[in-house]
Amino acid sequence: MPKQIGFLGPVGTFGHEAAKTWLPEGPHVPYPSHLHVLEAVEKNEVSLGVVAVENSIDGPVTDVLDYLIHDARRVRVCGEVVMNISQCLWGRHGTVLEDVQVVFSHPKGLGQCAKNIHALFPKAKQIATDSTAGAVIQMLESDVPAVAIAGKAAAQEGAVILQENVQDRQRNSTRFWVVGRRSARPTGCDKTSLAFETFKDKPGALLTIYAIFAARGLNLSRMESRPAKTALGQYVFLVDVEAHREDLELKDALVAARRCTSRLKVFGSYPQWREQA
Amino acid sequence: MPKQIGFLGPVGTFGHEAAKTWLPEGPHVPYPSHLHVLEAVEKNEVSLGVVAVENSIDGPVTDVLDYLIHDARRVRVCGEVVMNISQCLWGRHGTVLEDVQVVFSHPKGLGQCAKNIHALFPKAKQIATDSTAGAVIQMLESDVPAVAIAGKAAAQEGAVILQENVQDRQRNSTRFWVVGRRSARPTGCDKTSLAFETFKDKPGALLTIYAIFAARGLNLSRMESRPAKTALGQYVFLVDVEAHREDLELKDALVAARRCTSRLKVFGSYPQWREQA
Repeated sequence: MPKQIGFLGPVGTFGHEAAKTWLPEGPHVPYPSHLHVLEAVEKNEVSLGVVAVENSIDGPVTDVLDYLIHDARRVRVCGEVVMNISQCLWGRHGTVLEDVQVVFSHPKGLGQCAKNIHALFPKAKQIATDSTAGAVIQMLESDVPAVAIAGKAAAQEGAVILQENVQDRQRNSTRFWVVGRRSARPTGCDKTSLAFETFKDKPGALLTIYAIFAARGLNLSRMESRPAKTALGQYVFLVDVEAHREDLELKDALVAARRCTSRLKVFGSYPQWREQA
Repeated sequence: MPKQIGFLGPVGTFGHEAAKTWLPEGPHVPYPSHLHVLEAVEKNEVSLGVVAVENSIDGPVTDVLDYLIHDARRVRVCGEVVMNISQCLWGRHGTVLEDVQVVFSHPKGLGQCAKNIHALFPKAKQIATDSTAGAVIQMLESDVPAVAIAGKAAAQEGAVILQENVQDRQRNSTRFWVVGRRSARPTGCDKTSLAFETFKDKPGALLTIYAIFAARGLNLSRMESRPAKTALGQYVFLVDVEAHREDLELKDALVAARRCTSRLKVFGSYPQWREQA
């Protein structure tokens, strides 16, 4: 099967930019949600998919994480792309900010700009859209004065950028995972992403796991928790280890960690992202 | 000042239920968002406020956590309330599920029912509302066939429950924090919630902090991370320690932890929630 890469569409989203970065020649296939992208890879409709996983201002993309924790069967993380994100305020020609009644964006776009939206449009209704690029289209179709928050690539005829960099902090980046049906080969500078549950939600349990990695000189570059969905106070812990699962230290750590966890799932190993020169 | 408690309104939200649980006699003062509740306590408009902090299916309420981490000056957590949550599907009399074009709910309501919504209404648009009770009102005002997801208390004339317990897992509970201007007194069965940043985002650093608590026999009942908002890979860690900050072991642990953290903020100490008989 020739390579194809699915992304959260339509054309002009940050996911589309990430897909073009990973596989410039394409084809790039739009899907209506991150879950559709993941399911398309699961069913082999496309060989690759790209999904957002965390943003430096707004945090984790929880539906993607929850899918990988609870539902993914054959999907593996096989790459990462980190993109600088400039959110732009889009409106129509002649939009008067004081008149704006609705702000459209993807929930992560609204989250990255929460304070600025609150300051600029304290009384406007915020409407969450399926994607940032879709927000610009909905803004153009709106019956009431509206704006949208999306990237520059979300341009549409009739839409103009009223302000650039409207995110709450100037430095803003999003990490995307490239998913496929298998992990990537070791390159010598890799990461492995995994999820685990401890037997008891007690400090000793988590400490034991972290100590297993630390004792083998393995750095954890990310720690996150998500609800186990069974009861309050039950969590799944997500970590990124700076090693490939075929590296001896990590192989050894995983054997030890499996003994101290009620569940351990490796999402995949992949080369660490390096900023392009 | 007589006690008043602010909540995410309008009347009929789960926050309203939590406010009534904490301070049955009221007065209960509705606010349009969690941030408005927190700011009202900050400014002393009300003596208490109640805000959701985590849900067992959908996870943390990130705008509340981010406010406490980055913005809160005088607000202290002084209590917790845990509520069982039954999300109901609300519609008008005679609603035909196949015709439904829009699903209204608060983002956490949509998150708790994500899979069921996807199964019942694969093509419907999901619109995030400011509150669950507000979703029922918007459903009634909708020009197109719509449903809303909210609790039983969100009843409005003209709205009927089409299905109860539409959340993805039957067991569903939400933890609320009661906030005021000072911590609660020790009761012998308390919790202290705090946030910290390590000097380096390396496993050794986090391990050191966790070991400080474990060595003093202090249980951590919750661990969470949020982006520090400065750069990807920089996190603020949130833990709940099962002790009061005036307990000797925790006092001692906090002194030790301050030495190993670049920032440590105690949100407050408060009595642990106990299920009412």
